[in-house]
This record gives sequence, C-alpha cells and structure tokens, in this order.
Amino acid sequence: MGDAELPKKYKAAVYDKPGEISTKIVELDMPEPGPGEVLINLTHSGVCHSDMGVMMNSWAALPHPTQSGQVGGHEGVGKIVKMGPGTENSAVKVGDRVGVKWISAICWSCPACLEGHDGICFNQKVSGYYTPGTFQQYVLGPANYVTPIPDSLDSAAAAPMLCAGVTTYAALRKSGAQSGQFVAILGAGGGLGHIAVQLASRGMALRVIGVDADEKKDLVMESGAEEFVGLGVGDTVARVKELTGGLGVHAVLVLTAANAAYAGAMDMLRFGGRCVCVGIPEGDPIPIKGALPQFMVARALSIIGVAVGDRKEAIETLDFAARGIVKTHYRTEKMDKLTDVFQEMFEGKLKGRVVLDLQ
Amino acid sequence: MGDAELPKKYKAAVYDKPGEISTKIVELDMPEPGPGEVLINLTHSGVCHSDMGVMMNSWAALPHPTQSGQVGGHEGVGKIVKMGPGTENSAVKVGDRVGVKWISAICWSCPACLEGHDGICFNQKVSGYYTPGTFQQYVLGPANYVTPIPDSLDSAAAAPMLCAGVTTYAALRKSGAQSGQFVAILGAGGGLGHIAVQLASRGMALRVIGVDADEKKDLVMESGAEEFVGLGVGDTVARVKELTGGLGVHAVLVLTAANAAYAGAMDMLRFGGRCVCVGIPEGDPIPIKGALPQFMVARALSIIGVAVGDRKEAIETLDFAARGIVKTHYRTEKMDKLTDVFQEMFEGKLKGRVVLDLQ
Amino acid sequence: MGDAELPKKYKAAVYDKPGEISTKIVELDMPEPGPGEVLINLTHSGVCHSDMGVMMNSWAALPHPTQSGQVGGHEGVGKIVKMGPGTENSAVKVGDRVGVKWISAICWSCPACLEGHDGICFNQKVSGYYTPGTFQQYVLGPANYVTPIPDSLDSAAAAPMLCAGVTTYAALRKSGAQSGQFVAILGAGGGLGHIAVQLASRGMALRVIGVDADEKKDLVMESGAEEFVGLGVGDTVARVKELTGGLGVHAVLVLTAANAAYAGAMDMLRFGGRCVCVGIPEGDPIPIKGALPQFMVARALSIIGVAVGDRKEAIETLDFAARGIVKTHYRTEKMDKLTDVFQEMFEGKLKGRVVLDLQ
Amino acid sequence: MGDAELPKKYKAAVYDKPGEISTKIVELDMPEPGPGEVLINLTHSGVCHSDMGVMMNSWAALPHPTQSGQVGGHEGVGKIVKMGPGTENSAVKVGDRVGVKWISAICWSCPACLEGHDGICFNQKVSGYYTPGTFQQYVLGPANYVTPIPDSLDSAAAAPMLCAGVTTYAALRKSGAQSGQFVAILGAGGGLGHIAVQLASRGMALRVIGVDADEKKDLVMESGAEEFVGLGVGDTVARVKELTGGLGVHAVLVLTAANAAYAGAMDMLRFGGRCVCVGIPEGDPIPIKGALPQFMVARALSIIGVAVGDRKEAIETLDFAARGIVKTHYRTEKMDKLTDVFQEMFEGKLKGRVVLDLQ
Repeated sequence: MGDAELPKKYKAAVYDKPGEISTKIVELDMPEPGPGEVLINLTHSGVCHSDMGVMMNSWAALPHPTQSGQVGGHEGVGKIVKMGPGTENSAVKVGDRVGVKWISAICWSCPACLEGHDGICFNQKVSGYYTPGTFQQYVLGPANYVTPIPDSLDSAAAAPMLCAGVTTYAALRKSGAQSGQFVAILGAGGGLGHIAVQLASRGMALRVIGVDADEKKDLVMESGAEEFVGLGVGDTVARVKELTGGLGVHAVLVLTAANAAYAGAMDMLRFGGRCVCVGIPEGDPIPIKGALPQFMVARALSIIGVAVGDRKEAIETLDFAARGIVKTHYRTEKMDKLTDVFQEMFEGKLKGRVVLDLQ
Repeated sequence: MGDAELPKKYKAAVYDKPGEISTKIVELDMPEPGPGEVLINLTHSGVCHSDMGVMMNSWAALPHPTQSGQVGGHEGVGKIVKMGPGTENSAVKVGDRVGVKWISAICWSCPACLEGHDGICFNQKVSGYYTPGTFQQYVLGPANYVTPIPDSLDSAAAAPMLCAGVTTYAALRKSGAQSGQFVAILGAGGGLGHIAVQLASRGMALRVIGVDADEKKDLVMESGAEEFVGLGVGDTVARVKELTGGLGVHAVLVLTAANAAYAGAMDMLRFGGRCVCVGIPEGDPIPIKGALPQFMVARALSIIGVAVGDRKEAIETLDFAARGIVKTHYRTEKMDKLTDVFQEMFEGKLKGRVVLDLQ
Repeated sequence: MGDAELPKKYKAAVYDKPGEISTKIVELDMPEPGPGEVLINLTHSGVCHSDMGVMMNSWAALPHPTQSGQVGGHEGVGKIVKMGPGTENSAVKVGDRVGVKWISAICWSCPACLEGHDGICFNQKVSGYYTPGTFQQYVLGPANYVTPIPDSLDSAAAAPMLCAGVTTYAALRKSGAQSGQFVAILGAGGGLGHIAVQLASRGMALRVIGVDADEKKDLVMESGAEEFVGLGVGDTVARVKELTGGLGVHAVLVLTAANAAYAGAMDMLRFGGRCVCVGIPEGDPIPIKGALPQFMVARALSIIGVAVGDRKEAIETLDFAARGIVKTHYRTEKMDKLTDVFQEMFEGKLKGRVVLDLQ
Repeated sequence: MGDAELPKKYKAAVYDKPGEISTKIVELDMPEPGPGEVLINLTHSGVCHSDMGVMMNSWAALPHPTQSGQVGGHEGVGKIVKMGPGTENSAVKVGDRVGVKWISAICWSCPACLEGHDGICFNQKVSGYYTPGTFQQYVLGPANYVTPIPDSLDSAAAAPMLCAGVTTYAALRKSGAQSGQFVAILGAGGGLGHIAVQLASRGMALRVIGVDADEKKDLVMESGAEEFVGLGVGDTVARVKELTGGLGVHAVLVLTAANAAYAGAMDMLRFGGRCVCVGIPEGDPIPIKGALPQFMVARALSIIGVAVGDRKEAIETLDFAARGIVKTHYRTEKMDKLTDVFQEMFEGKLKGRVVLDLQ
C-alpha cells in the first residue's frame, strides 16, 4: 500500500470521561512513522480488565490520572502499512502482521533494558495509557519491538495472547518449575488462569493443580489440569498437599487479586518451592502472610515478583498459540460497542474475552 | 590408636538445668561407632548463640524442650580414632581431622536429601540438641557426612567456620549475586556478618556495602567492605541507593534478627534484586514489610529463604578458610569455663567468639 | 519374610566363557546384607547391549577383562527381603520394591559424589561387571542407593527404565532444551532412541525431530516425534534445518554409536545449540568432526558429554514411567534362555527388549 | 558543539593495498548521523591483531576480501558530537564518551538478537571490515549500541578493553567457573591472556593457573595468577593436575591460536569440566583432539564455543576496568605511524598494545 492510499483520517475509541465507563468514537489524523517506527493498520484489539482500570482511574499501580481523549487498548494486531526512516534492517516489513502489547515501546538504554529485563524498562511506554493504544484503526510502534504474528495464527485469536498469554507464560518460566513437577495455579479458571493452565500442562509438561471456585472446574480441567481443587469445601491447602503425596507443589502461581490467595499460597509449597506473584490485590498493599523469615528459612522457600513478559517471551507465547497449544474463548464486537463491553465487564457479566473488530 | 588405647570414660559438658545458664562437666561412657559411623576425638568446639538458645529453651524454632543432661555444641573439630563397620570406602580414615556441624547427620533418603537439599533433610540430626553435641571429648558421626578439615587450617580456627562460615557462604551463593555486583549485608559487623563480608568481598569478588551500628565500622571495613553505612544517622536505605548510583543493590543479606532490618531490606534492592533471609527474628513471626505483591511485581524482586548450608558448602567454606580468605576472632577457653562463657554471652559482653579447648 | 524363610541357595546366570556368547545357570550361596545394605529378591532383569559388551569383552570403555563366573545384568527389580545393620533411617524397608541400575553403588565421598555427580563416582560399582549383577534371584544393594519403584509401575516394565530410561532422561535434561524448543534425536528408533522420543515429547514438551533408518519411521512417530527424517534419501542435515525454519535445532542427542552420526550432529544445530554425546562409537576413538574451534566460536555451539544418570534422575525417570508417559516394548523370557537371547541380540535379530523372569 | 563547528572534512587511516602491510591517511567527508545514530569524534583507537588479519586478508574467518580504502579499527573511544533523529530517549547524549567495538551495530531483530545473543547477530556490522572502523577522527554508531565509557576510565586505557577485555570476560562468564574454583588459562601471557588473568583473579575471584612460554612468567604472576606452568619443561598437563590436587581444573580457556593448546586442554579438566574455545587456529580447521565421545561421556566434559562479547558484557568489562581491576600495557602513537605499528606487529616485535592518538 503506497502513501497515497492511506486515508487522512481514521476512527479511534477514546476514553471520554476518565473515572466513568464512557468511550466514544472519534476521528484522528493519520500519524507518520518516525525514525525506527512502523505504522500499523490494526484489525483487532482485545479488551482487558486493565483497560477498565485505566479508564476508571481505579488502579493504584498507575501513577497519573488518565486524560480525556486517551485511546485505550493494549492487545492490538494488524498489518504494517508504512515504515519510518532507519528501519531497513528490521525483521518486519510492509505487509507483515504484528502485535502491540502492554509495554509497547522501550528505551533499549536504561539499566533494565541493558540487562535484558525489558518488561521493567525505566522508560517504557504503556499502550493505552498516555501513549495511544490499540482501540483504533492505526497505531505507531517501534519496528524492533512490535511482535511478529505467526502465519498460522488468526489475528483475533492472537490479540488476547499478547497480554494474558505473555504474562502467564513469563510467570511460568520464572517459577523455575521443570517438566514433570507440580504447579498450583490459584485462579485457574479466570482470564489469566485458564491460559496459564493450558501453557503449563500442554506447553510445558507441568502437572497442574488448578484452584478456583467450584463452578470453574470444567473449564480448568478442559484446559489441561491434572487435578482441580474447589474453594467451596474444606481445606484447600490440605487438599493440594494431599494431591502431591503430602509434600506440596514445586511452585504456586497467584493469578488472582485476592490477598487471601497469597495467604494460602506459601503453605502449599514443597521445601525449596517458589511462590510467584502475578495478581495485584486492590486496596492498600498488605504484606504476604507467609513471608515470614522463620518459615521461609526453615523450608528454603522463595517469593518471586514477575513483571509483564518481555519481547522474547511474547514471541514464544505466540509460537505456543500458533501450534494450537493454547486457545482462549472470545467473541468479536464492533468498535462502537466498547462502552457496552466495559459495562458488561464492570457488572461481572462478561464470559470469556471480547476482541474488537476495528475494521 | 588401637581400641585398647581408648579410655573407657571421657569428659563432657552438659546442660544441667535447661532454661537457665547452667552447665556441668560429667563423665560419659566411650561410645562405639555403629555401621557407617566414625568415632571422633574432639579437640575444639566453638560456642555459638544458637547453643545458648538451645540451653535456655528460648528459641521458638526448636520444637521440643531441651532435656537435662544434653551435651550441647555444634562446631566441633577433632581426629577420627575409630571406624565403624561398613566405612571401608569412605573418604575419611583413622587419623583424619574432621568437623561436626549444626546438621550432624542426614538420612540420605528423604525427598530433600534425594534432591541434594541436605540442609533441610526431613530426618536431620541437630548436633547438641537431642543428639549429643560437640562440648565433649568424643563424638560419633557419619563417615560420609563429617566435614574433612584441610591440612593447612588450624582446628580452633576451623570450628567457627562450621557454623557461621557455612551459613553465610550458603546465603551468598543463593543470593545469585555475581562477581562485580553489589550486595548489602545487614548486620555486617556481627558474628555472622563479619564472616559474610570477608567471604563476599575476598572470596567471591562481590562489592560489599556493610550496614551496622556505627561502632562496627572498623571491623566491617577491615573485613573487606567497599562501603559502610552506619545505622546512627540519616536514611540508611537512601544511603545504600546513593552508593549504587541510585539503583540499589543486586542482593541484600539479612543476617540480623531484627524485624526492622527486614523492613528496610526490600527497599535497598535494585530491579530484579533478591532479599536473602538468614536471621530469624525472635518473638511472634511478622511478615516481611516489603513482601507486597504490588511492589515485588513492579520491580521483579524476590525473597529467598536460605536454610543452613549443606555438605558441599561446608567443604567449600573450609577451603576458603584454608586459603586464608576468611578469618574470625576467637579466644580459647577450657571446657569448665563454659558456664562463664554463656553468662558473658547472655550479658552481651562477649567480644568475638569463644572456642573451647576440649583436651 | 523372616531370615528362616530365606533359602540357603538360589539361582544365577553367569558368564561362562567371557569373550564368547555363553551363560550358564549356577547355584549361589545366599548373601548376608552388610552395614547399610539391603538384600533384594529380584523378580525381573532387563537384558541390555551393554551386558553383551561385558560378556564378550568387546567394549573398550571397560578397563579389565570380565572374569568367568561373573553374574551379569544391570536392570534389576525385586523386593527387599532383609535389611543390614545401620539401615533404620533409610527410605526403604522390607517388602518395598526397588531397582538396581548400571551404577549400583557409589562411595558418597569422592569429589564427584561430594558435588552430586554420582553418575561419575570415582569408586562406583557397576552392576554385572566385577560386582554381581541382576541376572540372579537375589542381590545386595545399598539401602540409600537402590531406586524405589512406584506402586503403579509393573516390575517388568520398570526394568528397562533403569538403564535406557535413565540415560536418555539425563541426556535430555543436560541438553538444556526447554519446552517448546526443537531437539533432534539421532538413532530415534533404537532402544535408547524410542524412549528418548517419548520422554522428550510427552514428558518434557520438546519438539522432537527423530532421525533414523527409514523403516523406523512408524516407531519414531508413534513415540511422539513431531517430524521424522529418514537416513535413506537426500541430505539429512538440510532436512532437519528446513524443518526448523532454516535455523537448526536447539539440541541434538546422539544416541547411536556411529561416528557418522556425530559428524552430522554439529551441523544440525542452531546458533547457541548443544550437541549431547551419549552413544559411544566402537573402535579407536575419533574426534567429533564438527568440534572445530572456528565453527564453534562463530556459532556459539557446545558439545556436552553426559554420563549415565544419577539417583535423582533415576527416580524422576520412574515417575514419568509410572505416569504412563514412557513405555517400552519387551518380551519376557525365563532365566535359562539368556544365552539364546544374547545370540539373537548378537545376530541383530532382537526386536524390542527382553526382560528375564527370574522367579 | 553545534553543527556549524564540525569540520567538513576529517582524517582517516585506510588500508591502501589489502593483502599487504600498507595504510595511508586520507581526508573523508564528515558523515551525517541517520535515524538512531550518533556521530562520534574519536580520540583513540587500539590496534589489534585482528585488524592486521583484515588488512592482510589472511584470516579465514572473514568471508569477503577487504577492499582498498577500507577504514580499519575496532577499539575506538571518543565523544558524541551529534545525535541523529529518533535518539531522544537513548541513554547517551552529546558530550558523552562512548566506545565502538568489533561488533559495532546489530539488527535487534534476527533470531540471535531476539534471544539476547547479540554477539552472533545475523546482520552484525564489524567495525573496520566493510563498515568504516575506528582508525579515523569521526565515526557513526547506533545510539543504543555504542558502549558508554565510565567517567573514571581514561580513553586510551578504555580502548583495548573494548576488544580483548570484552572477549575474555565473556569467555570467563561462559566457562561457568565459580569464585574459588580453578581455571587454566592457555596463553596467559598474551594480549588476551594477561587481561583474562586479571579479570579472572581480581575481578571474579577464580584461582588462575596461567600456562604460557617460560619468559611470560612474570607478566602472568603480576596479573594475578596463583600458579604459572611454563611450556618449556616437562608435562604441562601433569603439572596442571598436580596443582589441583590431582583432579584438574574446573575450566580451561584456550586463548591461543595453536591447535596444540586445544589438544592438551581437555586433559587438564576435572570431571564435569568445561573447555572454552576462544582462540581461532589458523590454517585448515582441525577437530579438537580431545573431542572424543568416549572420553567426554566418561568424565562428563563439555566444550563451549564463545563468540565475542555482547553489549552487556562490554559494559561490565568497562566497569571492572574503571574500578582498576584490569589494566593493560600500551603505548600511544600518532595516526600516521599505523603502517609502522603493523610492521612491528607482523615481525612479532610489538610489546604490549598500541593505541592510536587520533587528534
């Protein structure tokens, strides 16, 4: 597609009144890719709980209030339509499908980037928060940081992988659990959880004990868990231990935002085990109940904070998805339904995930 | 030395009235090494704070009250004088100098032993607590688990290495800090601390920031710290960060038993940093103040509980000591001064460490 | 079973004229377990190519010629019937099923043992070579080194796992290949190979490219390979590269004894890849053709020698087998058919593996 | 410095007749930094044996013959004088001192870059070979890939660190040797070797056994080796083993280009040891003599090819240099002496290293 063929204007969904559930469709001017950038014609964007947090200004982890007119979204997929200067040697070219994720750009230069921790880049840009996100038809991204989408993976299916997929994959890798070992996944039937169960069991050959509310059992077992422990009845920790011959699991992934989940997580661990923090409890931060030196020393336990996944983990996650190992349930909605989708999400009525069709 | 030459009786210092500072010298019958065991003629034993905890029944980590008549001590060095049956292929033989440490015997068979975590063996015997310890002239030990003492290392100097040396060495290794990286040592001028500083700086080429009360500065700097941060004035955390270019350290070792030390430790860490727990606060366990999922996720931090060192770490620690890299200050006392030594320790008047001369 | 019930004599198959295919059944005196030992009533023993090498004195890796009267075998399974002195705390007890593998006893004391490398213990005993092996109804073994057999695993099925299973499992772990990465297995349809394919694909979620003679294709694919490359037609290396998007595999396992396999292995590797040596070519040792500094530096390649698996790896392998992830084809034969079995093996007519029924 | 102040022309030393020792000074047009680039006013450049290889077309590792007019050099240090577009967020700014190394630019996008192996980037630019190098007063470099020079490190001293320093540091890290373990350095008194000895001993707390010709003993010992083994007398391998208690070293670094060094290297290794290839023998590639599957399996040995260091390793190396841990002997020469310097190098008369003063 030549320059001449690009429209001058395009549609975007912006947060109208941050703090409320309110989006509107606006027309924006087509941007020009700067040095090192590509212009992407987005076709799909997932809608994530974190987007609602940004829109509602309800998420303590974000330092500044969201501004009116902000384009949200951080799970975007589309085709490159134009390359900026200095992108001749990059891996992508016009026509390639690529993705934009939560961290949409890094500085390559800060101490974290220098050590390959790009998930905690000191100068990261977060898609859909201060940086224009993926609820729009065109977006700019760094040629070397957008995520190539494998040919065999559908764009709509790829979108949620860029957030929930990458995050849980990074957490599983950093858990140190090896094939054949036990991992307990707390919140196994949730948006992150059911993806984590698939990646862990089918993708990494871990033995998964899924923990969640009883009504999530079917989803957890279908996702590949070896065992399910419902929160409804009895002592969850005791049940997890029983299922592992009394020893406990090699790692726990805490994917829920409940302080209670963290409280039980440490007790599920086998000697030398690792509790991996992913879910961020709301409200005032409370120390993890089991983070007791006495207990951690006696059993050689660890607690590991895992930031969102990095560039390499994103590529690996999409490779698992392209191979059919991990799938997620989603329905497609048009861009102008975004307010309704957030309303549904707010009321807790959303089943599975929504992917916006941006075309 | 043949069997005939071994005396029938020998001297031991036992806890007379556990719960109080009270030891007495008794005569015990010479034991016979069982299958896989060796009989050691001890010449030296360090006296450690943990011994006082056992004697006083003041240490919450121990599950059962100490019994009257218990032989304490867990830093013993001596010569093998007799081998039990089935020890033909072991690395040690009559005449070899060997050491006995906190964990004096393991089962080789439990899940922890099978994975090489012998410091958390499910069936471990703790020297000087239920198992006869090293405040005596003869002790039994497993041929394959006693620690060979390098020829160039003096027995009295070796004794404290078997406890403080091994513990801090294991903690430094598990901190994941690499040569050239920064480690903050909290309690750097203490019994564990000044050994940790030596091992870290001279033995492992880490850049040590020692943190302790101001009067410990000389000891900490002599031990090899690159910087000292006194607790007396100003903001300790801010000072540690300043000394590391604003980033923080790669790892913190908490060697003190103060909850306050744990509270500050997490804030001293660089992104991706690791807080290593060694010191066990007294009183009711309190969660580590910085063990907040929000904070740990955002900065990719970890907390690591490190059990006492294992057999391999003991051997490596003694190798560092034999090479002159780590030394500790001690004075020698006769066995019958043990009550006085504990009294001095209890009153906080003890400078350096005491090693009992058992001969 | 009490002592009284043990027979005074029992049957064993010994090598009659080492250097030839020749075994005979003899009666041996019941041995008494020494310190740390258990007496095992064997019910099954696998017959392995390495046994033939020992019997025929044809294997250069063994330092001394085999003696007449040697009891061979190193894949034995049976029940403990008597415990020697000093075994009170071991993980096993009378009545437990346990296995005896290639390395049947270690010293726990040599530098290799101290570092947990028990597969290369300096004082190892090799079952069926100088130490009485498993082609007999009773055998002694160290209480802490015999391998517990999981309840759900049949004894006959367990036997071959103790050699081929453990060896290939150790090699896969040491290959450093991570779930989702490619591993090429050279000799994928052989005795080691088809087990390696199962462990790699189903047990460790690796993407396996099996390489072998064309007629092995079915077995390789049934074992879980993602792709098969036949040796019959065209350029094997080029085909492996093509199947990995032109890059090459993350690791190659060389399970055959052909120098030609080693010659091609290095060229199949992706940058940073690892060639894992397992198969031992016969004849005069020849350097691996691709072990060229120029080539290895430019592509950051490694070559890794992997000794037989250790105690922990044996336990993990049996866990995979007990979970049904790995199976091997075998037929059962009586002890007195051993010479026939070796004859069949020598003539290359043996399909699958033979397990002797020792009862 | 504003644009107006930059001269239109500047001086460079180019290879006049590649294949011969021949350089001449020419005037070149001042280049303009492109997107993502910086323009550096170089003040110093080391002269390295690899430069001579490029000039003489004598180095088999380089795929294409060098062209007349090529600006050589790959150890350059200078100040940034101008920033290209799209460099606003980079870690460097006008006025910063930075270095240019062997790999002067990478693509950030190829499979190797994606995995953080930037030393083997598929699209790397090699300074001084097809890409204009550092024997000139101005050079372009990528803002995110030039190496920041620590304030306390002199520019002339920094130059050789960018090649010999980084290469040996990368090799030491990849050797897997831990503080307190033995490493043998073959070629310990050479240009790479004496730097490796300093980094290993003072920087990483390894126990270094330096191996080289007898006349290098003083330099090797001054550099921090614990032992020196001369090549002149007796059995070098036997002497190395003797110095390590008969076991051998944990790792060997082969820094010389002699096939003979590789031949002995494997025999110096302890069980589980690692032979690290750095030096590239000239002439037809010959397989490493000890790369025998039989031998490597029995002793669990590895051979590791290490490419030139990456961005992170360059920064860490300069940090060691800035802390005074590693130093190299050099003399300074003017740019127009470059032909003489190469002549001296060719005749083997060069002592230490030459750094060109480019001002």
